[in-house]
Amino acid sequence: MTYGHTFQAWRDNTPAWPAYTHHAFVQGLGDGTLAHAAFLHYLKQDYVFLIHFSRAWALAITKADTVEEMRLAAGTVNGLINEEIALHISTCAAAGIDEATLFATQERQENLAYTRYVLDAGHSGDLLDLLAALAPCVMGYGEIGAHLASAKTSDTYGEWIGTYASAEYQQLCQDVGMLIDGAVVRRLGDSAHASPRWASLQARFAMATQLEVGFWDMGLDP
Amino acid sequence: MTYGHTFQAWRDNTPAWPAYTHHAFVQGLGDGTLAHAAFLHYLKQDYVFLIHFSRAWALAITKADTVEEMRLAAGTVNGLINEEIALHISTCAAAGIDEATLFATQERQENLAYTRYVLDAGHSGDLLDLLAALAPCVMGYGEIGAHLASAKTSDTYGEWIGTYASAEYQQLCQDVGMLIDGAVVRRLGDSAHASPRWASLQARFAMATQLEVGFWDMGLDP
Amino acid sequence: MTYGHTFQAWRDNTPAWPAYTHHAFVQGLGDGTLAHAAFLHYLKQDYVFLIHFSRAWALAITKADTVEEMRLAAGTVNGLINEEIALHISTCAAAGIDEATLFATQERQENLAYTRYVLDAGHSGDLLDLLAALAPCVMGYGEIGAHLASAKTSDTYGEWIGTYASAEYQQLCQDVGMLIDGAVVRRLGDSAHASPRWASLQARFAMATQLEVGFWDMGLDP
Amino acid sequence: MTYGHTFQAWRDNTPAWPAYTHHAFVQGLGDGTLAHAAFLHYLKQDYVFLIHFSRAWALAITKADTVEEMRLAAGTVNGLINEEIALHISTCAAAGIDEATLFATQERQENLAYTRYVLDAGHSGDLLDLLAALAPCVMGYGEIGAHLASAKTSDTYGEWIGTYASAEYQQLCQDVGMLIDGAVVRRLGDSAHASPRWASLQARFAMATQLEVGFWDMGLDP
Repeated sequence: MTYGHTFQAWRDNTPAWPAYTHHAFVQGLGDGTLAHAAFLHYLKQDYVFLIHFSRAWALAITKADTVEEMRLAAGTVNGLINEEIALHISTCAAAGIDEATLFATQERQENLAYTRYVLDAGHSGDLLDLLAALAPCVMGYGEIGAHLASAKTSDTYGEWIGTYASAEYQQLCQDVGMLIDGAVVRRLGDSAHASPRWASLQARFAMATQLEVGFWDMGLDP
Repeated sequence: MTYGHTFQAWRDNTPAWPAYTHHAFVQGLGDGTLAHAAFLHYLKQDYVFLIHFSRAWALAITKADTVEEMRLAAGTVNGLINEEIALHISTCAAAGIDEATLFATQERQENLAYTRYVLDAGHSGDLLDLLAALAPCVMGYGEIGAHLASAKTSDTYGEWIGTYASAEYQQLCQDVGMLIDGAVVRRLGDSAHASPRWASLQARFAMATQLEVGFWDMGLDP
Repeated sequence: MTYGHTFQAWRDNTPAWPAYTHHAFVQGLGDGTLAHAAFLHYLKQDYVFLIHFSRAWALAITKADTVEEMRLAAGTVNGLINEEIALHISTCAAAGIDEATLFATQERQENLAYTRYVLDAGHSGDLLDLLAALAPCVMGYGEIGAHLASAKTSDTYGEWIGTYASAEYQQLCQDVGMLIDGAVVRRLGDSAHASPRWASLQARFAMATQLEVGFWDMGLDP
Repeated sequence: MTYGHTFQAWRDNTPAWPAYTHHAFVQGLGDGTLAHAAFLHYLKQDYVFLIHFSRAWALAITKADTVEEMRLAAGTVNGLINEEIALHISTCAAAGIDEATLFATQERQENLAYTRYVLDAGHSGDLLDLLAALAPCVMGYGEIGAHLASAKTSDTYGEWIGTYASAEYQQLCQDVGMLIDGAVVRRLGDSAHASPRWASLQARFAMATQLEVGFWDMGLDP
């Protein structure tokens, strides 16, 4: 399982990465100890999250330099709006929560902080700034899904785990990894680590990771 | 053939509308008198146009207020990037122009003026400002396609005409018309004509129509 | 002390308004019981806040419809960058914190959440969306300064209080109030309350107020 | 007279630079042969231009990475809105054109093309993309003013020439040159020419120069 060189480098230089991918919320998904109320609370917040996360990926299309970059970003937007959001709607519907309720969910500050940070990364910088802020969510869920699929000791949250462990989602992570690697070479050249921008991109990735930790914290605090 | 109330009102109050939809370039497509060099020149510029037009529709996703608005805009982005651009690539390939050449096309000022005006309409205003600037292109081509399909006296440009006369393209125009009608009611209420914004939206639509006339003028000037 | 009709209406319909303007942090400024460490922590975060808040006011210039709207927004940007930020630098310098340290302040999530929410309000909507998200900060500080100036029982934080109670700052609040009133009439007409947008603008104002409460909470948690 | 290393490099690699700075319109300003009607037509279009150009400089504030970058951009915005636009208003007033007429000027396509291209450069890229598109206007007028001040054979347009030849305007050009040089080093490092971004920045500068040529062409075509 590899999601590209750039992601690997950013991830390995982010001290908070394990705090995100092995958070107590994640452990609770794997061993089934996560309270169902917390899970539903998370799903509702995540529905709102996905709306703004889709907006951020749409922003990526507007900041692409090649048709290939546009295609990859557009594919992700479509996957998010027509598949991942739809999955949340059906999962919530099964739990008795209809879409109007979902849409009316009061967005929590920890939720809002992440997506608006990502959007601002895009508006204030270029495509790389945006991708560095988007990556922790996309690939972090990929890592979590893949890890829990083999490590889980309960099937309570098996459907959630299965979604992110699926071949399709893993492929998405690889595609996004390729998009990032290509976008980096296209803008920073072959020795991107030597660019003055490397440190600021790394810092964006680290901040976004920290905000993901905050999102899980919120998940445990319905 | 109707593309919604709002479009109809904007269109009927735009004196330059016939100059756009019955331009000499359009007549030349219908009767086959348009020089092939002019057509290829147009196709190359239109390829660049579609890239920036897709970016503008992606911007619409970032400015939507409801998931339904997002879905409609995302569907249009996908149609543009994966179908309409692809069609240009294959048509040009058949004429001996490869995609690298297309992408390297030097963008003409008349081309650039329109797409950047649309993008700025979105950035400076809200979703309605953006939609008012997008509409003349989407629906104008719908009207032109439908009209030429019945009025054409030559099959030279039959494939181009068929694309915009097709049931799929006509459906897209109706979907966009519904998107606009819904977005207007959601923001301006039932008596949108009485809103102070109506005049500025009408002015955006008129300016975008004028820029479409400029695009056809450019088409005749390879 | 009146900051315009629109602000008054938004404020009076925001249940969290007193929780913001009479927060424990504010009380501690007035009676001098606020720990100095908390005050310095707040000043450092507020320096970072002002940078992004200035960016949001600059965004307002890009979304103005008239030269007068541009002038008022540009005046505010200048005041923020060349006066209010400068004041923070000198106050912090007096406390032994240099500007490089200020600029390197690790931005807290509660801080980031507010400014990025404001910026996204501007990018996703029009000037009114942006102004509704900017107003709670500008005018809330005006109210707090004016109130504490007469109610304070200690001079420990007298300079801070004096800044926001000053005739200049109060004038700024009135100017912004006029800018908002004018922008509302220009876009929504004379019966703005009847517009479908009124509820969403009110909701933006309420969310921004809530995020201000979060900012004070953070101030008490160095 | 030097406006920085980066500008010099971009300028020297732009074949259309002389076509812009020694355009027939410019010659007509210097020898007084420019028709007064053309000059007034130009002033009215330039008033609208300055509004959108100010918006683009305001966008630069939102995309700055340091407080120093923000200060320089904010100073330019202020100079544009409160001085250069004011100068146009008084010059036009002296010619019997009031501000309401100026503001109602129908924006020409050649005018719109340039400012919206600049704004989109900022939205789609980072601060460097925006600065590369802004530079030809700022520094080109500096070069033209300085050149005409010594080469003019008529005082008919002496006030216009004096404005751009003035110590203040020349200082502005030097400040913007420094801003660009600093922004380049901060993002691309010391060997910016070796960055893959250099070619695209150069291309933006060249396109903006071409659009300036179009603006002068329009000036001669009232």
